[in-house]
Amino acid sequence: MQWRELPAIYFEDPGSPVERSSYLIELHTDDGGSYDVVSDASSPAARECCAQQSSARHNWEMNYQEAAIYLQEGENNDKFFTHPKNAKALAAYLFAHNHLFYLMELSTALLLLLLSLCEAPAVPMLRLGIFVHATLELFALIVVVFELSMKMRWLGFQTFIRHKRTMVKTCVLLVQFIEAIVVLVRQTSHVRITRALRCIFLVDCRYCGAVRRNLRQIFQSLPPFIDILLLLLFFMVIFAILGFYLFSPNHSDPYFNTLENSLVNLFVLLTTSNFPDVMMPSYARNPWSCVFFIVYLSIELYFIMNLLLAVVFDTFNDIEKRKFKSLLLHKRTAIQHAYRLLVTKQRPSGISFKHFEGLLRFYKPRMCARERYLTFKALNQSNTPLVSLKDFYNFYEVVGLKWKRSREHWFDDLPRTAFLIFKGINILVKSRVFQYTMYTVVAVNGIWILVETFMLQGGNFFSRNVPWSYVVFLTIYGVELLLKTTGLGPVEYLSSGWNLFDFSVTLFAFLGLMALAFNMEPFYFIVVLRPLQLLRLFKLKKRYRNVLDTMFELFPRMASLGLTLLIFYYCFAIVGMEFFAGVVYPNCCNTSTVADSYRWVNHTVGNKTVVEEGYYYLNNFDNILNSFVTLFELTVVNDWYIIMEGVTSQTTHWSRLYFMIFYIVTMVVMTIIVAFILDAFVFRMNYTRKNQDSEEDNGIVLEKEISKEEVIGIIELYKRTSAATETAQLQKIVLQMDKYGQMSTVFLGRRSRTKSDLSMKMYEEEIQEWYEEHSRKEESQTPLQEPASASSSSLKPLSLRQRSQTVI
Amino acid sequence: MQWRELPAIYFEDPGSPVERSSYLIELHTDDGGSYDVVSDASSPAARECCAQQSSARHNWEMNYQEAAIYLQEGENNDKFFTHPKNAKALAAYLFAHNHLFYLMELSTALLLLLLSLCEAPAVPMLRLGIFVHATLELFALIVVVFELSMKMRWLGFQTFIRHKRTMVKTCVLLVQFIEAIVVLVRQTSHVRITRALRCIFLVDCRYCGAVRRNLRQIFQSLPPFIDILLLLLFFMVIFAILGFYLFSPNHSDPYFNTLENSLVNLFVLLTTSNFPDVMMPSYARNPWSCVFFIVYLSIELYFIMNLLLAVVFDTFNDIEKRKFKSLLLHKRTAIQHAYRLLVTKQRPSGISFKHFEGLLRFYKPRMCARERYLTFKALNQSNTPLVSLKDFYNFYEVVGLKWKRSREHWFDDLPRTAFLIFKGINILVKSRVFQYTMYTVVAVNGIWILVETFMLQGGNFFSRNVPWSYVVFLTIYGVELLLKTTGLGPVEYLSSGWNLFDFSVTLFAFLGLMALAFNMEPFYFIVVLRPLQLLRLFKLKKRYRNVLDTMFELFPRMASLGLTLLIFYYCFAIVGMEFFAGVVYPNCCNTSTVADSYRWVNHTVGNKTVVEEGYYYLNNFDNILNSFVTLFELTVVNDWYIIMEGVTSQTTHWSRLYFMIFYIVTMVVMTIIVAFILDAFVFRMNYTRKNQDSEEDNGIVLEKEISKEEVIGIIELYKRTSAATETAQLQKIVLQMDKYGQMSTVFLGRRSRTKSDLSMKMYEEEIQEWYEEHSRKEESQTPLQEPASASSSSLKPLSLRQRSQTVI
Repeated sequence: MQWRELPAIYFEDPGSPVERSSYLIELHTDDGGSYDVVSDASSPAARECCAQQSSARHNWEMNYQEAAIYLQEGENNDKFFTHPKNAKALAAYLFAHNHLFYLMELSTALLLLLLSLCEAPAVPMLRLGIFVHATLELFALIVVVFELSMKMRWLGFQTFIRHKRTMVKTCVLLVQFIEAIVVLVRQTSHVRITRALRCIFLVDCRYCGAVRRNLRQIFQSLPPFIDILLLLLFFMVIFAILGFYLFSPNHSDPYFNTLENSLVNLFVLLTTSNFPDVMMPSYARNPWSCVFFIVYLSIELYFIMNLLLAVVFDTFNDIEKRKFKSLLLHKRTAIQHAYRLLVTKQRPSGISFKHFEGLLRFYKPRMCARERYLTFKALNQSNTPLVSLKDFYNFYEVVGLKWKRSREHWFDDLPRTAFLIFKGINILVKSRVFQYTMYTVVAVNGIWILVETFMLQGGNFFSRNVPWSYVVFLTIYGVELLLKTTGLGPVEYLSSGWNLFDFSVTLFAFLGLMALAFNMEPFYFIVVLRPLQLLRLFKLKKRYRNVLDTMFELFPRMASLGLTLLIFYYCFAIVGMEFFAGVVYPNCCNTSTVADSYRWVNHTVGNKTVVEEGYYYLNNFDNILNSFVTLFELTVVNDWYIIMEGVTSQTTHWSRLYFMIFYIVTMVVMTIIVAFILDAFVFRMNYTRKNQDSEEDNGIVLEKEISKEEVIGIIELYKRTSAATETAQLQKIVLQMDKYGQMSTVFLGRRSRTKSDLSMKMYEEEIQEWYEEHSRKEESQTPLQEPASASSSSLKPLSLRQRSQTVI
Repeated sequence: MQWRELPAIYFEDPGSPVERSSYLIELHTDDGGSYDVVSDASSPAARECCAQQSSARHNWEMNYQEAAIYLQEGENNDKFFTHPKNAKALAAYLFAHNHLFYLMELSTALLLLLLSLCEAPAVPMLRLGIFVHATLELFALIVVVFELSMKMRWLGFQTFIRHKRTMVKTCVLLVQFIEAIVVLVRQTSHVRITRALRCIFLVDCRYCGAVRRNLRQIFQSLPPFIDILLLLLFFMVIFAILGFYLFSPNHSDPYFNTLENSLVNLFVLLTTSNFPDVMMPSYARNPWSCVFFIVYLSIELYFIMNLLLAVVFDTFNDIEKRKFKSLLLHKRTAIQHAYRLLVTKQRPSGISFKHFEGLLRFYKPRMCARERYLTFKALNQSNTPLVSLKDFYNFYEVVGLKWKRSREHWFDDLPRTAFLIFKGINILVKSRVFQYTMYTVVAVNGIWILVETFMLQGGNFFSRNVPWSYVVFLTIYGVELLLKTTGLGPVEYLSSGWNLFDFSVTLFAFLGLMALAFNMEPFYFIVVLRPLQLLRLFKLKKRYRNVLDTMFELFPRMASLGLTLLIFYYCFAIVGMEFFAGVVYPNCCNTSTVADSYRWVNHTVGNKTVVEEGYYYLNNFDNILNSFVTLFELTVVNDWYIIMEGVTSQTTHWSRLYFMIFYIVTMVVMTIIVAFILDAFVFRMNYTRKNQDSEEDNGIVLEKEISKEEVIGIIELYKRTSAATETAQLQKIVLQMDKYGQMSTVFLGRRSRTKSDLSMKMYEEEIQEWYEEHSRKEESQTPLQEPASASSSSLKPLSLRQRSQTVI
């Protein structure tokens, strides 16, 4: 077995890297002598003498770190021109790239956004004094200044200026700063529409990368969208003129009496929101006038609106593909950068485990020794001791795998009897009979709930005594949950989305039961979460499984789209609050056409008090929460013109612009959402059609076998170089192998499938072309600067940084 | 030039065909001796003796006819098992396959459908006595019986029984017959819901093939649709239960007080039709209750409804492709059938012009001699005198071309001076300067109209004196129209969709002007058609050109989808009329929750009469026209629950089922329409992306050169065989060639591109696979029954009819 001789390589002299981390090079051109220890190690003398163990190791540490940074940049789609260029920048980069810093970024952004809960038209319960919220705002803004200065330190002034998003952020920051100070000084709030720009702090957060991508996609889809929108508006204008000529002679028709009314009503008609009403006065006069409306709706609503969707869908498709391509190529370049930093001059054909392990220590500090070795082995498809560039290209696919011994149960280490019991439970839980029994129980439960609810109608259904059926079913679910957790082990049990769903529903149902038992009213609605268990029944059919699995897969993306929508909401809510706060109240709009919806009369008929409630005054912009609900109602579009007309009657008719622009913006976002769902599902269904043989897929699975010698070899390696804590787990594996007399163990690497994996499969053929085209382009941009070695033929020199002087 | 010796082949002895028309074979087993002349020609003696010119020619005529029938069947996608099998069937087939018969079919179907205008809840103006309309109905039904008997004669009883659509039609016919007689006898109309089935007579018409295809597509998309619908309903039920538990304690909330109300209101909420209202009572009580509605709408409306679209879109895509494939293979088989009937035993490698011409005489009787020859030449790509099977496969693509001499103008034959003038106009009209001048005029006109309308507001805008601007612009358009028609010739001018559009708009504008001049009020709205001219401006940008061209291309398909929707409307209108005619009237629903919309009060406030009009009583089912409008309003969905609740309050609450089912049905059809538009546009855009080089495309164009010798050859051929009228046009060509001293003329064949052409291009690679798979399948089904000849290797024997005895 060829792995036997491997340890020799692990312990080889690290050698000198083909290329050195730029931080080392920069260090001795750097005049600040902050890194004393390093500066002598990287002196020309030290560099020539490779035998000096400590300096060589330090060299390598730097290389590992820079390679890890490259790989991170590849993963996060950070452009390479923001790559830290010297040791000082590196320090700032490291400071600004950890979860603590990210969390600070996020929390300041959230704080700024949440301030609008307490500012001027505040939510009653959360109102704060002007002094308090302005100080809070200033504090948050100062934190943002600090963040930006760290970024400047890392990027350098030149790059900082070039980075558009950061520049916009700086400008907004300035404006906010000035305004906050003005508010503090004047002790009164002025019309601060610029608060709408606070969103940019959230968008710029590291954690909101998906939102940024969505926004970019929306802006990229805009040009074709606007084209079709113009077509839509053109027809609207034509029909408005036509409608004005046709219907304005009819004086009982309030919808078309002026050209402006005609236009506004046709705009509203586009959303169908005023449909039969707008037609009725003319229809009552002449039945044939319905033709006008039918033609208008057929053209605008049923044709051009769908055209809009088609055009956006098409653009979306195209953008998705281009985005995938550029991301793929970006990752590839990142891998090339990292690779060049990890190969040694002695062995330019690949990366040894020693160096790979060093990289992973920086790239994924949490990974344990076993996983690092397995990742290395999974990458290494040629079975030689070195990972070639070609193998290294799979880095991102492999590094995400979670490794587990195959047929490993959590109860493996228990005594024999316990093992057998749990094994039995495990087999029972995985059996079909058990599954179908549970399905039957769920179905019966569903029917039961329906019948029960139907019988209870109007009765006092929250009585003291808990219905026995409820207890019975909950007990069954509880037993199932217990069996499954013990049979599969809690970790495996909860790793499936379906189980997680079951678990939380059952847990909530228990909470509900307790609430019922202790008669805590506010919790009673948890009781009715029970029917959600029925969702399990849909697992029985393949199409539903497909649909629901895709739903789970899409969830992160959907959430980011939702967040994007919320950001638009926020902007509009701020503007709405500044202009329309307090304008709508009961009986406010008695002069307008929508008076009924705002009327609130308390009159007495006979001896009974009749309350006539038009609740629309509740849809206002009085505080940010109310604004959000109002904006949601505007998004749903039905009867939005009542809200619009109500506000308009209290302000000017220019207010309509606000509502119309909001409609168009949500239309854009909603069309994108529809296009996204369409694209994702059609893509997925095409994928399943392409891979009909592999029906059941549980994500990406990789199998690797490891022999005992290898494990011992790694232990040796770790013992020499680093702390002993890392080797404990490895030694346990050796012990277990001894126990069962195995010479090797099989490990399974598993991760869930992402959209990127699907795309890889779908564009299989095209990807090769992209790669070739990409390398051809790079070649033509920068001629080879070093003699081509055997394996680095597909490795192109870096175009972003001049490195010729570092390569000997 | 190899075509010189061609005439020899044209006049060759026709030879005997490889295969004979089945009608000839049947004739002498047929005991009726109606075809005396033929019967001796096809006697064994006559068959052996091929020299008998007349009998051979008759043989060939029969072969031509059957080949033409095969090609027609291929084109219309008629299954070959309905192919007429003997001479009697042939006669019936010919009787039932011409436009006169089709028109009769269509008009009886329309008559039956239109009867519902005059029956029981009739349109007031069109009311007919029961005796009259029942007699009319009986008459129409008798015509249908006649049509069916012709079909039976053609298909034979066995096939007739097997043909599902025809059987359904027969059953419906029977029911209708009985009912019509019952009505006549009782002299009163009973509840005749079966009238809804009358649609089947329309659907079965030859001209409604597209509607049949649409219906099939809808039914094929149903299974996945229903799956997702169940998911939708499942969530609806869960939320209904939840809503009932949450909101029924609130007694001021009428929407959730019973489980049924809860369900119905959530169903309506799915259409967003009652949105903010349904939320308001609970929102007024507890602001957090909006979460329930937001979650419900997010899941149902924004997620599952889009999912529905995605699933239907995906299925639609798949069906379109499969349909295209089967149609393509069907056509191919039809061509193979026809080919075998047209080759001679002497020359089995192809079809000579003589036989091809014979085929076209039956297939397209209207085609002139010149076109027939050009079609032949366009098919014949090998330049040998015979068209091989491989070339013949392109038959359908080539036969639709319209042939025209290249650079042929309508004024070519005019005297020199006139020719030069018209040539000048022609060049002017085609110049860019002219086009852009017109665009400017149109733009100015547009702005003018807008400003004018804005200034006119509320004034008396239909005054006697015609505005001068109107006359000026109309004159410019008139001049443009004149120039274009004279420059391009009326035929070429009107062959472009855009020109046709210009023409009709200008014409209508003229009519409007006249109406205005003579002060005929009803015509005045034609005046406002003028802004439609502005649509021309969109031709300036490529995306719009693309979109509008696609629109023109899609128009037939869109129309057929619209017709399909109308057929559903008809069914629902009949049912609606039977159950709900007359139930809704002013002030009908004062006890229901939607009383306001139906209230019609005429009360006096001070000395003014105030009319409070809730117009919803107009949305009724009182006659079929009203029903259609009401159904359209239900389709648009906004405020449909007002109509539903109005009807429900006057009948039972089971009426809601009608409205809900209607909603689901229109949802299916509408989703299909959206999927269709999406599919068509995305397809088209992919196509343009694939062929970016050929930016401007004017449909399919083919170029063919014909020499003088060839023309003379054809003239000779026609002189010998048929009437001299055919040759007149050909002789004119020769004369013209002589005049200009040309030895040959180039002809251009042109036709607009169809979806099928696009598909051909898009599936290029797959098509070859399909062909191979198809021929492999056919080979395995029926082993070769004759010795393989050189060219017929790819020609497979027909599996539908046993022909071995006819082939010697």
